[in-house]
Amino acid sequence: MEQFKILLGEKDIPNSWYNVAADLPFSLPPLINPGTKKPLAKDDLKAIFPLALIEQEMSTQRWIDIPSEVLDIYRLWRPTPLRRARRLEKFLKTKSRIYYKDESVSPTGSHKTNTAIAQAYYNKKAGIKRIVTETGAGQWGSALSFACNVFGMGCRVYMVKVSFHQKPLRKSLMHIWGAEVIASPSEMTEAGRNILKRDPHCQGSLGMAISEAVEEAAKNKEANYSLGSVLNHVLLHQTVIGLEVKKQLRIAGEKPDYLIACVGGGSNFGGLVFPFISDKLKNKGLNIIAVEPTACPSMTKGVYEYDFGDTSMLTPLIKMFTLGHNFVPAGIHAGGLRYHGCSSLVSALCAHDLVEAVSCQQLEVFKAAVTFARTEGIVPAPETAHAVKAAIDIARREKKPKCIVFNFSGHGFLDLSAYDKYLAGELVNYAHPISSIKKSLKDLPKLF
Amino acid sequence: MEQFKILLGEKDIPNSWYNVAADLPFSLPPLINPGTKKPLAKDDLKAIFPLALIEQEMSTQRWIDIPSEVLDIYRLWRPTPLRRARRLEKFLKTKSRIYYKDESVSPTGSHKTNTAIAQAYYNKKAGIKRIVTETGAGQWGSALSFACNVFGMGCRVYMVKVSFHQKPLRKSLMHIWGAEVIASPSEMTEAGRNILKRDPHCQGSLGMAISEAVEEAAKNKEANYSLGSVLNHVLLHQTVIGLEVKKQLRIAGEKPDYLIACVGGGSNFGGLVFPFISDKLKNKGLNIIAVEPTACPSMTKGVYEYDFGDTSMLTPLIKMFTLGHNFVPAGIHAGGLRYHGCSSLVSALCAHDLVEAVSCQQLEVFKAAVTFARTEGIVPAPETAHAVKAAIDIARREKKPKCIVFNFSGHGFLDLSAYDKYLAGELVNYAHPISSIKKSLKDLPKLF
Repeated sequence: MEQFKILLGEKDIPNSWYNVAADLPFSLPPLINPGTKKPLAKDDLKAIFPLALIEQEMSTQRWIDIPSEVLDIYRLWRPTPLRRARRLEKFLKTKSRIYYKDESVSPTGSHKTNTAIAQAYYNKKAGIKRIVTETGAGQWGSALSFACNVFGMGCRVYMVKVSFHQKPLRKSLMHIWGAEVIASPSEMTEAGRNILKRDPHCQGSLGMAISEAVEEAAKNKEANYSLGSVLNHVLLHQTVIGLEVKKQLRIAGEKPDYLIACVGGGSNFGGLVFPFISDKLKNKGLNIIAVEPTACPSMTKGVYEYDFGDTSMLTPLIKMFTLGHNFVPAGIHAGGLRYHGCSSLVSALCAHDLVEAVSCQQLEVFKAAVTFARTEGIVPAPETAHAVKAAIDIARREKKPKCIVFNFSGHGFLDLSAYDKYLAGELVNYAHPISSIKKSLKDLPKLF
Repeated sequence: MEQFKILLGEKDIPNSWYNVAADLPFSLPPLINPGTKKPLAKDDLKAIFPLALIEQEMSTQRWIDIPSEVLDIYRLWRPTPLRRARRLEKFLKTKSRIYYKDESVSPTGSHKTNTAIAQAYYNKKAGIKRIVTETGAGQWGSALSFACNVFGMGCRVYMVKVSFHQKPLRKSLMHIWGAEVIASPSEMTEAGRNILKRDPHCQGSLGMAISEAVEEAAKNKEANYSLGSVLNHVLLHQTVIGLEVKKQLRIAGEKPDYLIACVGGGSNFGGLVFPFISDKLKNKGLNIIAVEPTACPSMTKGVYEYDFGDTSMLTPLIKMFTLGHNFVPAGIHAGGLRYHGCSSLVSALCAHDLVEAVSCQQLEVFKAAVTFARTEGIVPAPETAHAVKAAIDIARREKKPKCIVFNFSGHGFLDLSAYDKYLAGELVNYAHPISSIKKSLKDLPKLF
C-alpha cells in the first residue's frame, strides 16, 4: 500500500534543540554593538531578553535541552507529519519523490509556534509580565499570542500596517488568545512617530515594526522583546523540524537530494536544514535551496555586510545578506518574507556556498499554490508557496528520480483574500530595480 | 508520560462503512413519495442520484465496502487524531477524561470531506459531469468542491445568502478548487425566484438552497444533486469517524460514558455515534448527546412527523424531528446548524430514547469556544463549539470521573469574523417563541 504520511509518536519529539554553530567549518561573525563597534556583550541584551535566551544566542554547545514545560506544549501538535506529495507527483508526471514537512498543523497554523512557546517560557521563568513583538503576515504575532496565553502573560503585537489591513484574520486570532494588536508604524513609540512624520501613509515593514517593539521593551522593566526569526536562538528552537524530518526520512528509507524552504528572516529554513548541515559538509550532492520573493531579494540581490536588524538603528549590527535597513519591500501578500535582511546563520551558510538562494515572482508562486491545493488538498500560506514553487520547478527540471523535501511552514486558511485577488487577476509581479537597492545600500553602517 | 494524541496508521482506516440500519431494534419509517403518498421507489431518486448511492440509501446491509479509489483520497488525512483535552481538563478542574475526535485536519477543515469524496466518486463512475449542491456555513460546499476537483468534475454550490456574506472565505476556498458559488435564494431557479418574489431581502436557509440545487439537478441530465447531511447514505459515509474512535478508545483503554456531537442535519453526529449504538442497546449507562442551537431547535422543540426536506416541497417526505419546512431559523453564525429538520436515522434514535437532545444559546457557545481555543489551542467552528459547550457542561456537572468523547467536526479559521463580533460584544442570543414554531408546524404535509 502506498503510504501518504510518515508519523512519529510523542516520544519521538526531540528533547534537545540542535545548535548548528557547534559544527560549522568557519567561525560566525559576532553581533556588534553599534555604539562601541565591539562584539556584543551579554549585558547589552539584558534590557530586552532573559539571560537564558541570551546564552542560547551566543552558545556554541551542540545540543541544548528542551525544558519539559515546553515539551508538554509541543505535544499538543508535535511531532508533525512528513507527507509524501503523491498526488502532486502524479500531476507533475515526475519520477522524483516529493515530501513536505507539515508545520501547518500547529494550533496557530505555522512553524512559528515552536519558538514562541520556548521564548514565552524563558521569559515567564525570568519573571517577565508582558512580551512585546512585531509581526508581518501575522503568523508570528498569533504564535506568540498563543504562547503568552499558555503561560499567562500579556502580549502586545506591532503588526506591519499592510498586513494589518490585508490579513485581519490573524489579528482576530491574536485577539482570541488575548493579545493587543497595533498597526505599525504607530503613534505609540518614538520610532513610529518619526516614521509617520516622514511619511504619514507609510505601509510599514518588519524593520519598522521591530523598531517599535524593541523601543517599548527597552523602556519597560516588566516587559521584554521577542523576535520571531533572524536571531540564533530563534532558529535554534526551530530545529525540532529538521530533527523530526531526519527520523522520518530514515523510516521512509530516504536520503534527501534537495532540501527547500522559503526565507524571510530564515527561521523555517534554518529549522529544516540545520540538522542536515553536517551531511552537506560530507556530501556536496545534497542541495539546500533558500527561496525568497523577487520583491524582497536579500540573498539573491543583497550584500553580505553588517547592518541593523531594524529601520531605526536600535538593534545590534548583524553580519547578514541585506538590502539595507531602509529598504521597503513592495506590498506582496507573502508579508512574512518582507524583511530587508536575513538570519546571520543562514547568511553565513549562503556566503560559504552551503546554501543556494533563488527568488520567485508573486504570480508564479500563487500558481504553484493553487496547483498544490488542487492536488494535495491543503492551501499553502503565500510564504510557504515559495517553497512549493521551487519544489515543483526542481521536480520538473530533474530527469532522474530525486528525493525532494520542503518545509510546509504554514497553511493559507487566513490568506484566502490574497487567493481571491490572484484568481480575479488582480495580483501583479514585483521586482525592485537594482538602482533602488543600490540606493538603500548606501545607508549601511560604517564599521571602521 | 501523559499522552495527548491517540494516532492510528493508514492501514487502520476502516475499509467498510457501518450501516446502523442493520442493527436497530425497530424498523425505520421509509421515505415517502409526496405524490403517491407511498414509500419511495429507487426510480423516484434516479433523476438526481446515481444508483449506487440510492442503494446505499435504502440498504440494511451491515457493512458496505469503501472503494479503493475513495480510500486513496481518505489517506491524505485519515485516520484523524483522537486528542485528549488535558489542558481543558486542568482548566475545568474536572476528574473526567475529555477526548475529541479531530475531523478538522481534513483538507477542507471539517468532517464533510468524508462523504464528499464518496459521493463525487459514485457520481463520476455513473458518468455524471457536474454536481449541484447547497451549503450553509460553506463547510459542505468547500468539501464537495474539493471532491469534484479530485475526480475532475464540475461543481455548482447554492450557498445560503446569510453565510455567503458572513463567510466569504469558504467561498474563496470553493473557488480555489474550481467550483461555482451562487447566493441562495437566487434568480437561477424557479424555487429561488418564487422565494424572492415573496421576500426580496430573504437571507435564505438550507431548506431553500436545497430546493434550488434539487431543481437544477432534476432538470439537467448530465448533472446530479448531492446532499451534505440528512440522508442515510451521507451519514453512512461518516461512520469512518466512529469506527476509528472505537479503535482509538480501545488503545487508550477507555469505555465512553458520554458521546457528544452537534446536530444540524445530523451527519457528524451520526458519524461518531452510529458505531456505538449496539453498545448503547446493551448498556443504558452510555449517554449519547445531540447538541443543537436554541435558534434552530428541531429535536428539542420540534415534532417527530413526516415533512419535506426543503422549502419548496420538492424532496421526498422524511419522518424526522422538524420545525416545519417553512421555518426560517435566526441568522446565527453556526450556519451549518440552521436546518428545519434532522436526519431520519438520528430522529428515530431520539424518538426511541437512545439519544438525548439538548440546545445551547449562541453566547454561551462562543464563550466555550474561546475557552477551548485558549486551553487546547485549536479554534472551533461555531457549529463544533456546540459540542464543546455540552462537553464542558457535562465535565463540570459530573462529580465522578467519566470518559467524555465529543466530535470536533471542524476548525474555525474561516469563522474568525464571528469571533470578532463575539469579542466585540456584538452577538446576541436567539430563541424562537413557541408560537412561531407552532405557526410553521401548521404547514406539515397531510399524509392520510
